[in-house]
Parts: sequence; structure tokens; C-alpha cells
Amino acid sequence: MSKESKEIGITVSKKDDLSEWYTQVVTKSGLADYASVKGFMVLMPYGYSIWEKIKEFLDKQLKLTGHSNAYFPALIPESFLKKEAEHFSGFTPEVFWVTLAGNDKLGERLAVRPTSETVIYDSYAKWIRSWRDLPLLINVWNSVLRAEIKATRPFMRTSEFLWQEGHTVHADREDTDSEVMRILELYRQLVEDQLAIPTLVGLKTEREKFVGALYTTTLESMMPDGKALQMGTSHNLGQNFSKAFEIKYLGKDEQIHYAWNASWGVSWRLIGAMIMAHGDDRGLVVPPRIAPVQVVLVPIPYKNAEGARILNQAKKVAEKLQVAGISAILDDREQYTPGWKFNEWELKGVPLRIEIGPRDVSRKEVTLVRRDTLERSTIAQADIVKETRRVLDSIQSSLFEKASRALKQAIRDAHSYDELKRIIENEGGFVRACWCSDTRCEDQIKDETGATIRTVPLQDEKVFSNCIRCGKNAKKVVYFARSY
Amino acid sequence: MSKESKEIGITVSKKDDLSEWYTQVVTKSGLADYASVKGFMVLMPYGYSIWEKIKEFLDKQLKLTGHSNAYFPALIPESFLKKEAEHFSGFTPEVFWVTLAGNDKLGERLAVRPTSETVIYDSYAKWIRSWRDLPLLINVWNSVLRAEIKATRPFMRTSEFLWQEGHTVHADREDTDSEVMRILELYRQLVEDQLAIPTLVGLKTEREKFVGALYTTTLESMMPDGKALQMGTSHNLGQNFSKAFEIKYLGKDEQIHYAWNASWGVSWRLIGAMIMAHGDDRGLVVPPRIAPVQVVLVPIPYKNAEGARILNQAKKVAEKLQVAGISAILDDREQYTPGWKFNEWELKGVPLRIEIGPRDVSRKEVTLVRRDTLERSTIAQADIVKETRRVLDSIQSSLFEKASRALKQAIRDAHSYDELKRIIENEGGFVRACWCSDTRCEDQIKDETGATIRTVPLQDEKVFSNCIRCGKNAKKVVYFARSY
Repeated sequence: MSKESKEIGITVSKKDDLSEWYTQVVTKSGLADYASVKGFMVLMPYGYSIWEKIKEFLDKQLKLTGHSNAYFPALIPESFLKKEAEHFSGFTPEVFWVTLAGNDKLGERLAVRPTSETVIYDSYAKWIRSWRDLPLLINVWNSVLRAEIKATRPFMRTSEFLWQEGHTVHADREDTDSEVMRILELYRQLVEDQLAIPTLVGLKTEREKFVGALYTTTLESMMPDGKALQMGTSHNLGQNFSKAFEIKYLGKDEQIHYAWNASWGVSWRLIGAMIMAHGDDRGLVVPPRIAPVQVVLVPIPYKNAEGARILNQAKKVAEKLQVAGISAILDDREQYTPGWKFNEWELKGVPLRIEIGPRDVSRKEVTLVRRDTLERSTIAQADIVKETRRVLDSIQSSLFEKASRALKQAIRDAHSYDELKRIIENEGGFVRACWCSDTRCEDQIKDETGATIRTVPLQDEKVFSNCIRCGKNAKKVVYFARSY
Repeated sequence: MSKESKEIGITVSKKDDLSEWYTQVVTKSGLADYASVKGFMVLMPYGYSIWEKIKEFLDKQLKLTGHSNAYFPALIPESFLKKEAEHFSGFTPEVFWVTLAGNDKLGERLAVRPTSETVIYDSYAKWIRSWRDLPLLINVWNSVLRAEIKATRPFMRTSEFLWQEGHTVHADREDTDSEVMRILELYRQLVEDQLAIPTLVGLKTEREKFVGALYTTTLESMMPDGKALQMGTSHNLGQNFSKAFEIKYLGKDEQIHYAWNASWGVSWRLIGAMIMAHGDDRGLVVPPRIAPVQVVLVPIPYKNAEGARILNQAKKVAEKLQVAGISAILDDREQYTPGWKFNEWELKGVPLRIEIGPRDVSRKEVTLVRRDTLERSTIAQADIVKETRRVLDSIQSSLFEKASRALKQAIRDAHSYDELKRIIENEGGFVRACWCSDTRCEDQIKDETGATIRTVPLQDEKVFSNCIRCGKNAKKVVYFARSY
């Protein structure tokens, strides 16, 4: 945000040093900053405005599908977490514990929310009485805290992150399954159609599922360093939590039943995925549908009498775009040169730049420069709204297509364990392989290669070899990868 | 949310037992619930949807005035809080302290955010270099935690509350003063024009100002039990925090200067004020501009062939209103009678009910019932949008007028200390009195009556007696009250 750092662009190439490139893009584009508190980050205004776009899309879709927002306490008694034993053991190494209020030692220590299942179910048990109260479809926008011992990477691994957590209650398994899949599809729309990042959608194995869940569905994407990134998960929790928290209802059959639960979440990690998927050596590339600023207008020159005339024209064009619902801003700052502005907006990944110079004005034209390809084109001012829409749509779809080609190339079949090991070690990406469904094989592969089963396709794919690890009959085709 | 509790309306009168009435309205209308964690509350979906309306208004206005949102860590190192000594001593008795991460004792304990000045200024010190970086206008939507030892009252006194906190940096005092007053006016618009609650706007005394501030401005409202409620505050923090956190900038004069800070916030307490200001013995009354549901349509009867015809008509009316941008819902639930629905929506305070019965259909009319006065009127269906708008506007303004009359009646002049004591003790409300400006008199009045100076008018009012406490020359007319 300081002038000095703004003036310095990205100094390493994405393909030479992804990690350093990532850090530079995050901080120099004004998305986020490291906090002085170890493991934490600050979401800066530009990063927050992208988060707001993500929220806006998801919140609207959730409301259209009958969900409401609510807010539950940030501090959770240890006894709540302990009610579902598996769940507790999964989170306890990462919990920040409050032990004092002022100078008074607390009778029971309180966890700073690592996830809210337990504190929410405590309320649901009071609220739900009859089948008329179901389904109960609640979502929460908040932050959760999980102490990270490894190095912090903004958006990807931090001790606190912004997310949404959905917690729903259903009468039976069927309705719970529908909710899990409805949300999974909503997440797919968010990730693929808004963020332009292709995903593999499927199930987690027993080993990898959410602690306390019946099953977990997931969306997995591939990052340019060959590591998979979990983009979102949607869980069927069965009746595990309902039994632990006594969430019961009187059915239409006049009998008391334990309810069923689903939970699901996506976090600001999606912004990290977007940076990695689309960014280039000039900085960020933000997909138009999720861009807080879709178009920036830069008048050239920007000073003296001619500048004033051009500025006037640029204002008119900006207004036309804004009226048409396109998020356009005019950069009329006098203290910066056009070249400096080009660099800054390219660093920030604004999808489209419109330049207006003397020749443009005299010919009643404007010059468009796409951020993704840096292609320039000249169009008539009269076509500005139509052409801007067309180019923004084209950027959105070509970002997705490019990322889809990269994903396709990053999926390789392995017919032998040596082949799997070699690919994981040398190339990364997803390895498509056959598996006997035994957790012992899965454990051994993890121990020996660092790769886990990222996802099991929802529709079985045709088995093409024996189990990649034990050589016995394979039951499933699954996708292995190292991951974030 | 359970069926049983929904069926039971408010069982006490607001004027007989305000405290019990308040609790019943909050929980039975589905605004909020007590959490099992002592001192905390759950903001339920209906309450959250009102909070969303408040956020929507304020967020839009803040953005129009150049502010951006961001997010800062929830945990703050003790050393940060200690940097501004006065600030630290103000908050330390209420802080929840994190001392463990997993099983590891932390080297330095971390405060669960009681307010974010310190953690934010730590970042600002890194971001700000030159006058070009100023003003920096950032707002945060989050929750803060302050351990409450007294009894919890939902929205009014809880150990965690949702709020926004604005933290801005300016080059000089003048620009800081402007920001403080701009926000104060924005808060006045929110409270008076949206929530329909009249306020006294003014300054806090040295005794009552925010810990670490140069001065604090405030909006104070009067609750029906004669106690004042602080609705929002906007502070000029001077250079106190800039000096503690080394927020410096290079001025146009090529010299290094300490920056100036303002901070300001409103919380979900505004919802508590709204409940108390407008609610009646049937429940909540929500002002139309802040109502998530402005109009509810109830078809009568709602079953059989005639019911189907009426329902069809009601759908058309609902759609017409929705297209016009009015938040209207159709209550077509078959399991409840119209009478039951009337009670529920009155309890929830929906400003306008539209009934459609057989006679309405045959005459092409509908029946409107205002929530505030329960007045019924019949209008032509053709006029539905125009008339609904007119009635909603009328409800909004008459709620404000009624509350303004109540505020006016609750302000009484005191010419002697006995008179002040008698009013505070017997009647409550604001006592307008003259004061010498000495904190000792202020302290004594607090000790002897429980009343504090809620606000000092921005424009001096004409002194009409000597100091109410010491009898010496008075300098100011101020407003005393007991408060929440």
C-alpha cells in the first residue's frame, strides 16, 4: 500500500519460483499482508473486495435455495467438543484455548471456534421439536482459528481464516444426501463458473473424510506446482452429532427420531487458488465475474488542455459502462503516469483496460487491452457496452479453458506403483490409479510417496489394473496427489 | 423456532414488566436465543436478517464516502494492547485470554479481540509512508469479546457482539474532525431515518470518553424504562495511537509527521434499541426501511376450491409488490390457520399485513392491516403498489414521530440537585442541567444518583442555573441519565 512497494512489480517468474512469485503477488497487489501475530494474515481492502464478490454470489444462491444466515458464539466449552469423541480428537491439537477472563481463571476452558458443529448443535437441540421444524437450513459467515505450526502462506495456510460454514438438519438420510449434493453443485458453480477454476468433484475416502462424518464430498483443483488443493467440502454427518447432542424430532409417524445433519464450507483459500490458477509474471489475473473492478479507464495524456478534453470523454465512457452494470473505474490521478497506471492495474489483475488518447477521441474510438492475453483492439465508442461485455465474457471463458487444459494435462494414469511414484516425485499432478479400497494400501502410499487419495469419482470409472499398491483386485479408480 | 413456543404469544405487558417483555419478544419472535455458554447469545435467522439490513445500509454509505472493508486477526498479543497504556487499562478486566495452542503454552498470551485499534495500527504503521497514502479509510465487520460479569441481556449486554469498527488515518486534526463528524451524521441517518429512533447527538465528557481518545462523540437514545442507551460512538483519537505505534508519514512539506486517527462503531445493540423503542404487547414492530419482510400476504380462507382461487390472486399481488422492489412474502402454509398466522407475523413485527378474502377477490380489493396501529383499510387491487408504498412510508414516519414525542417527554430540566435526584430516582429519562465542567462534580453525581453525563450538546445550550452539584458558575448544559 505504500508508494514504494506499489512501484515495484513482480521480480520473479511464476514458473521459476512459484512460492516467491505467490508471496509477491499477494502482498504487492494489495490482497493481503502478513500480520505481526505469527501465523495470521490481514485481508487488505482489495483482497476483501474479492471476498465480498465470492460472498455475494454464494449468499444469493444459498438464500434462493432456502438457507438463512445466523451467528453463533466464538468461544466453545471444551465439554461441547468432547461430546463427539472423534471430532474432538481431530481438532484438539490445533485449538486455541481461552483459560482466563480478565484475571479470573475459567472453570472450564473455552476453545476459540475451530469449527462450529458442536456449539450450533447445542442450540439446534433446543429449537427442533417436530418434523415441521425440518429441514433447518442455516449458514454462518465467520472466521475460524486453528493453530498452524507449519509456515504461513497467505490464503492457503493461516491460523485464522474467513469462511462460511453451513449446518443443516434433516428428517432422513435421503434429504441429507440431497442437501450435500445441492451444495456441492453450488460450490462447483462458484469455483468453475465464477472463479474459472476447473475441479475434480468426488468423495473422500474413510481416511480423508471430515472427522465425525458419514461421508465427505470434495472439489479438488490442481495448482501449477503439481500439488492438489481442496477447494470446498460438503459432508453428510449422519446421526453422529444428533445422537451426541440429542437433536430429536417428533415424526409424522408420531415417533421420536434422531435427526440427520449436513455441514459444508468454503474459505478465503479460494482466493489463493485463483491467484495460482490465473496469475502471470505481471501479477494477478482476476476472472471478470469475480472482479471488484472489471474495467479501468486510463486517459492518455492526462494533463494540459488536451488531457482535459480526453478526460471528459473518458468520464462519459466510464459512466456508460457503469449504467450498464459493468464495474468500471476511471483512473484520473494526476500524480501518476499512464505507464505507471498500466503496471499497477495489471498487477491487480483488472480484466480489461480501456485507453483513450487523442486519436481515439478524434476517431470516436477507444482502445481495449485484455489483461489475460494483453491483446489490444480498437473499437467504436458507440459499441462500448456491447464490446466490453463481449470481451469480458471472452476473458472469463478463455481463463477457464486454459485452466481446463492445464488440469487435463496434469492428470496421468499409472499402471504400476513405480510409475505412480515416479510421476508424484518428478512431475506432480493427479495420478489416476486403481485401488483395492483397503486403508492399509492408502496409508502405505501416503507414507512412501506423500500422496493421498484426493478424491474418488462419484460415478465409478472403469478399473484398468489391479490395486496399484498391493496388486490384489482393484475396486475403484481414484485420484492421488500431494496436496496443500 | 419450535412449534410450541411459536404458538405462545407475549404473556406480559411492556409497561408492567419491560425486562420480561423484552426477553419474551427477543426469543419468541425468533430474533435471538441464549447460548449455553454463559454470557453469550445466538443471533437467530430472523435477527440476522435485520442485522443484514443494517449492514447493507451502512456498508453502502461507507463505500460511497470512500471507505473499504478489510479483516484483521481475532487474536491480539498482550504487548500490542500495552502500547497505549490508558487503552490497555480500560479493557484489561474484560479480556478473554488465550494461553494455550493445542497443548503448547504460548510465550505471550493473546487477547481475543476486545476492539482492534492496536492490531490494526500495527499494520497501518507498515503501510503508511507518505501523504499520498492518506487518508486511509478502513472499516471492519467482525465480532468483539468482552467478558460480562453482570447478567446477560440479548443485544444489550453480551460477552460477544457483532459490530463494525472503522479505523481511519488522517494527515491532520482538521481532516480527522471531519471524518468523526461525517460518521456521526451517517450513524444519525441510520438510527433516526432507518431505525426510526430519535437521538441526542453530542460529545462525551473526559470521564466518559473512549479510553485513549482525544474526544468521543455519541448518539444517545432513551429507552422506555427511563434509561439511556448509547447507540454509537465516533472518536477522534488524536495522535495517541500513532505515537504508540509509530504511524508516521512524509508530508508535502518533506517533513515526517505523526498521523491522526479516528475510530467509530455501532453494534447489534441497535436491534435491542429497536425492540424497546417500537415493540408493543403483541411483540416486535419493525420499521419498514429496516424490515427484512415488509409485507406479508395472508389468503383467507386458505383451503378448498375457493381457497385455491384466492391463493392464486394473492400470488399475483405478491409478485406485483416484489417486482416493485417491496419485500413481500406470501404465507401459503396449509398447516396453520389465518388467525395463527396473524399472531405470528404480528409477533415478528412485519410492518404491513395484506389479507385477501372472497369479498376482496370479487370486488378486486385487498385489506391492509398496519402493524403499528392495527388499523384496517380496504384498497383497490389496481392501487396496490402505490398504496403499499404510501402506508409503509406512513408507518416509518409515524414510528419516528411517536418515538420523538416520547423522547421529548423524557427530557426534563432540573434547577436544583434535589430536583435532579428526584427525577432520576422516580421518573428516569434525561435530566437537562447546568454543570461547572469539573469532573469531581460529575463523579459525585454518579456516586450519589447512578446518573452519568450522557452527552454534552455540540452547540452550547443556554446556561440557566449554577452548577447543579457545587453551585458554582456553570459552563455547560448537559444531559444526565442512568444508562444501560
